[in-house]
Amino acid sequence: MEKLTVIKVGGKIVEEENSLLALLERFSAIDGHKVLVHGGGRSATAIATKLGIESKMVDGRRITDEETLKVVTMVYGGLVNKSIVAKLQALGVNALGLTGADLNYMRSDKRPVKTVDYGFVGDVKEVNSELLSDLIAKGVVPVLAPLTHDKKGNMLNTNADTIAGESAKALAKHFDVTLVYCFEKKGVLLDANDDDSVIPEINRSLFDEYVAKGIITEGMIPKLENSFEAISSGVSKVIITKADELGNDSGTVIVA
Amino acid sequence: MEKLTVIKVGGKIVEEENSLLALLERFSAIDGHKVLVHGGGRSATAIATKLGIESKMVDGRRITDEETLKVVTMVYGGLVNKSIVAKLQALGVNALGLTGADLNYMRSDKRPVKTVDYGFVGDVKEVNSELLSDLIAKGVVPVLAPLTHDKKGNMLNTNADTIAGESAKALAKHFDVTLVYCFEKKGVLLDANDDDSVIPEINRSLFDEYVAKGIITEGMIPKLENSFEAISSGVSKVIITKADELGNDSGTVIVA
Repeated sequence: MEKLTVIKVGGKIVEEENSLLALLERFSAIDGHKVLVHGGGRSATAIATKLGIESKMVDGRRITDEETLKVVTMVYGGLVNKSIVAKLQALGVNALGLTGADLNYMRSDKRPVKTVDYGFVGDVKEVNSELLSDLIAKGVVPVLAPLTHDKKGNMLNTNADTIAGESAKALAKHFDVTLVYCFEKKGVLLDANDDDSVIPEINRSLFDEYVAKGIITEGMIPKLENSFEAISSGVSKVIITKADELGNDSGTVIVA
Repeated sequence: MEKLTVIKVGGKIVEEENSLLALLERFSAIDGHKVLVHGGGRSATAIATKLGIESKMVDGRRITDEETLKVVTMVYGGLVNKSIVAKLQALGVNALGLTGADLNYMRSDKRPVKTVDYGFVGDVKEVNSELLSDLIAKGVVPVLAPLTHDKKGNMLNTNADTIAGESAKALAKHFDVTLVYCFEKKGVLLDANDDDSVIPEINRSLFDEYVAKGIITEGMIPKLENSFEAISSGVSKVIITKADELGNDSGTVIVA
């Protein structure tokens, strides 16, 4: 199978002109087939504020009422996505910006209300990757916004990490997939106070050991659980790294 | 060659929930391959106003400064486009929302400043329809926002009629294309004061005769000139009709 790299980049790096351009240059230099998944939360909050819409977050997740859904549809699907697509085209990358509604690529269900009503937020139920994998094989580079749809006419706000993970799993039917999560640290750290203490490679038994010893804690636990889940669903490897290090073969590699 | 219908719909019909749904139901019922090209000017003006950005128009064309470009990229490429795509998916139409930057589909040059500086407005220079025609042949229905790019990293605001005309001409290499322009009247009228006096069919010699007699005047002249230009570039026929009449075989048919 041909190689495919699915890269998720969020945070302010994709929302500031200079850092975005540097990131896209590194991205465009990566060999082989690739997919970019982006966030855009800061821009959404900024536009919402200008429109007089309050941004409410619970545990880092945006409460998406009807007005907020319009904002994220505009900002993620329009402003951020098309800005990235146009810049990649200038770098010679044949980018195609998509949401989950386009080509019915990713269908989700509106999250049921339990203790929190997240509003128009989608939990992914179905990924249709056939048309997309044909396009990728022809050299197209999908750029995915963190939006899905419910196949009933509504867009739904969906976490970009989830979009990346679900894409990697679905595309693993067609390609040898590496999934790369970019975040603010250079990788999974042995010592939270030492940014250079990156664990180069981790498997399930080492992970269990580090969790037992309290080396891997809090937010890193679900990130790694998701990574192992991707690997057990056909993804070849998962890399956790810093966006600045993209293409440098650094970061933490999660293997089976 | 297989049949393809390229339909341009602008104005408030695509920007109000109920009329948009009725339109998309009629659109989804049209047989064969199809492409939808939409506008979104009213929504862009409304969002710009809320963001404190003044909308400046010259001869019906929007002056697109840097801030306005962000608004039209958000509104046309995000809000309006994805709303249409999600609704079409609910109707069983495998829609794919695109701007000219996606798949490098339509490249334009920023309009040179003559008497008016239109800002970030693009004049179309190149249409790359191969990937899109493959998708259309597979049953995908492209939904085109009125945006192009300059292949230098910038989106450009581009008239939806132009997008429709250029798309029809480029896709005529692959399909037997009918181009439909929806506007506020039922067709080209013999008597401007009688909405039912639609001219059923018009060719170049009849057009010249009606212009000489003062029956066809003003804004209808460039619309028809563009239609004849499309026909001389390989488009089989052009229909001018009202969006409410879509699929009813009514309107004015422009032939060679």
